[in-house]
Amino acid sequence: MTTQVIVLNGGSSSGKSGIVRCLQEVLPDPWLAFGVDSSVESLPAKMRGSKEGITFAADGGVSVGAGFGALDAAWTEGIAAMARAGARIIVDDVFLGGPHSQERWQKALAGLAVLWVGVKCASAVAEGREIAREDRVRGMAASQAHLVHEGVRYGLEVDTTHTEALACAHTIAAHV
Amino acid sequence: MTTQVIVLNGGSSSGKSGIVRCLQEVLPDPWLAFGVDSSVESLPAKMRGSKEGITFAADGGVSVGAGFGALDAAWTEGIAAMARAGARIIVDDVFLGGPHSQERWQKALAGLAVLWVGVKCASAVAEGREIAREDRVRGMAASQAHLVHEGVRYGLEVDTTHTEALACAHTIAAHV
Amino acid sequence: MTTQVIVLNGGSSSGKSGIVRCLQEVLPDPWLAFGVDSSVESLPAKMRGSKEGITFAADGGVSVGAGFGALDAAWTEGIAAMARAGARIIVDDVFLGGPHSQERWQKALAGLAVLWVGVKCASAVAEGREIAREDRVRGMAASQAHLVHEGVRYGLEVDTTHTEALACAHTIAAHV
Amino acid sequence: MTTQVIVLNGGSSSGKSGIVRCLQEVLPDPWLAFGVDSSVESLPAKMRGSKEGITFAADGGVSVGAGFGALDAAWTEGIAAMARAGARIIVDDVFLGGPHSQERWQKALAGLAVLWVGVKCASAVAEGREIAREDRVRGMAASQAHLVHEGVRYGLEVDTTHTEALACAHTIAAHV
Repeated sequence: MTTQVIVLNGGSSSGKSGIVRCLQEVLPDPWLAFGVDSSVESLPAKMRGSKEGITFAADGGVSVGAGFGALDAAWTEGIAAMARAGARIIVDDVFLGGPHSQERWQKALAGLAVLWVGVKCASAVAEGREIAREDRVRGMAASQAHLVHEGVRYGLEVDTTHTEALACAHTIAAHV
Repeated sequence: MTTQVIVLNGGSSSGKSGIVRCLQEVLPDPWLAFGVDSSVESLPAKMRGSKEGITFAADGGVSVGAGFGALDAAWTEGIAAMARAGARIIVDDVFLGGPHSQERWQKALAGLAVLWVGVKCASAVAEGREIAREDRVRGMAASQAHLVHEGVRYGLEVDTTHTEALACAHTIAAHV
Repeated sequence: MTTQVIVLNGGSSSGKSGIVRCLQEVLPDPWLAFGVDSSVESLPAKMRGSKEGITFAADGGVSVGAGFGALDAAWTEGIAAMARAGARIIVDDVFLGGPHSQERWQKALAGLAVLWVGVKCASAVAEGREIAREDRVRGMAASQAHLVHEGVRYGLEVDTTHTEALACAHTIAAHV
Repeated sequence: MTTQVIVLNGGSSSGKSGIVRCLQEVLPDPWLAFGVDSSVESLPAKMRGSKEGITFAADGGVSVGAGFGALDAAWTEGIAAMARAGARIIVDDVFLGGPHSQERWQKALAGLAVLWVGVKCASAVAEGREIAREDRVRGMAASQAHLVHEGVRYGLEVDTTHTEALACAHTIAAHV
C-alpha cells in the first residue's frame, strides 16, 4: 500500500524540520508538511505561556494544559482529514507523552497507510545545535532527546548525529 | 446558533492578520487561526514559484496551478474537519476567484455556523502599508483590493482604512 | 546643510519601523537603516535576559545593565562612523533615558547634520497595535508611549495615531 | 595581542551563522556579531534586486552594483569603528571578490588585532544544507563553496563537513 502519511517523531533540535524540507524536495509527488511548530502558532497568544495552554519553562521543560489538549486533538483530526481528502502529508511531532502520543495519532490516522519514522540524535549533539540556532529555549534538546522515543514503535529510524538531513530524507523516501 | 468558523476575506495588506490576532485576544474562548500564508508554507518549496503550484509575479499578480488547487482543496477539508471536531476556527483568505472561492469554502463548511467577514481597505492605503511592511511583492495590495470582494456575500464588513485592527476585532466579536 | 542622519525616537509599537521602510522608499538616494532591534540582535543570546545585558520584564518594562551600556556606546560610535564615511543613515531608537539617551547620540553624531524626529502615537492605539502584531512583550507600548519623549527636543514630530506610515515618511522626507 | 575582531569567511550554507552564535556563547566576554545578512537588511528594499544594489540570480549567482559597494564600504568602516571604540566584534562575510574582499577588510581594520577564519564545507554537503534550510536561493552554496576561499589567507580554518558548529567554535575560541 502506498504511504499516505509520514510521521516523524524526535526531540527538539534533532533535525526534523530539515529532513521534512528535504523530503518535500526529493519525493516526486507534492507532500504537504505540518509540524508541531505550526500547530502552536495557530493558538491564541494568550494560550502560549498559560496553564491551560502550553508552557515552555526556563529549563527546557514543556507542559500542556487541558485546553491545549482539546484543540490539539481537533488539529490532529483535521490533518487526518486532509490525508483522507487525498493530500500526501508529512507531520513532524515531539511525542512528549511517548506511546500515548503515538496512540493519539494512530487513532486519528486509522485506515491510512502511515510510515512512522524515529528521528534520533545524540543528546550532546542536539544540545550543541540548540546553541547554534538560538531560537529555542535552552534545555529542550537535552530533556527530550531520549524521552520522546521511549515505548514508541517505528517503521524506520534515522539518526542525524553523523548523517545530514538530505541523506536521511533519501533513506526515508526509499521506504515510501 | 453559535458561530463555529469565522472566515475573513480581504486583499493583501488589508490588515487581516492583525485582526485575526486581536480576535484571538478578545474572544473569550480559544480560537485556532489558519491563513492563506500557513497554507502556502505547508507546500513543498518547489511548488512555490512553479506553474503547477503558486506563482507571485513581479507586478503583484498571483497564479495558481492544478497541483496547488488539489492540495488546497484537501487543506480546506482538513480545516473544516477541525471545526467539526470541536475547535473554534478563524480562517483568513484571499478570494482570488471571488464567489467561486467562497463556494469552495461553503461546500467544505456545510452544516457549520459560519460568520463571513469582508475586510476592506482603500487601495491607496493598502498600497502604503505594503511599502511599510516590505515582506510582500509590490503590487499585490493594489491588484487585489477590489477584485477579491466582487460577488462575495458577507455577514459583516469591516474597513481598516480608518479603523484599527483591535476595533475591527471588537466589532466582529460582537457578532459571534 | 544636507541631512546626513535621521534619528527617529518613539515608544514600542509607535510605528517607527514602517516609517523607516517608507523613508527608504521615498527618499531619492539610498539610506541605510539601523534600529534598536538590530542592535539587540547583535548581542550574545546570553545577554538578552541577563542583568548585565537587557531584560524584558513580563509587564513590558525594559532594563539594561552596565555590560549592555558599554557595547551600545560602541555600536553608536560605529553608526556615526558610517555616516562620516559617507553613508546616509536612518536610526530608530527608543529613548528609555529620555534626554540622556538623546545626549548620547548627540555626542556620537557631533559635526553631522542630524534631523531629530519624534514618532508619537496615542497610548491606547499603540497598545492595540501591540496586540495585533503579537511579537512583542505586552505592556511595552503603554509604558513607553510618553516616557521616551520627556525632555527630548525634535526638529520634527509625526503622529501615527491617525496618519499612515507612508504619509509620515513623506512629511519627514520634505524636511531632509 | 588580544584578538579584537574575528572575521569568518565562507560560502552560503557553510555554517557561519551557527558558529557565530556558538562563539558568542563560549567566549567568556560579550562579543557583538554582524554579518553579511544584517548588512543587506539595512539596505533600502529597492536596492535588493536592482542593478545598483545587490541581485540574487535564480541560479544562485550574486551581483553587486556600484551603489551597493559605496554603502558597503561605509558599513565596513562603521564596524571597524565599533571595534576601535572597545567592542569585541565577530563578522561573518562571503568574500565574493576573494583576496580583494579581504583587502577591503584589512584596510578598514588596520591596527586592530584580527583573527581571520576560513569556514569550509564540502560543496555537496553545503548544497544539501541549502535544501534543508529552504530560505536561500538554490545554487548559492555550490557556486560559492570554493570561490570565496581562493587567494584568501587565514589564521585558522575550520571545516563544517563533519564537525558541528559548537566544536568549530571551541577551536576558534582557543585561538582568541
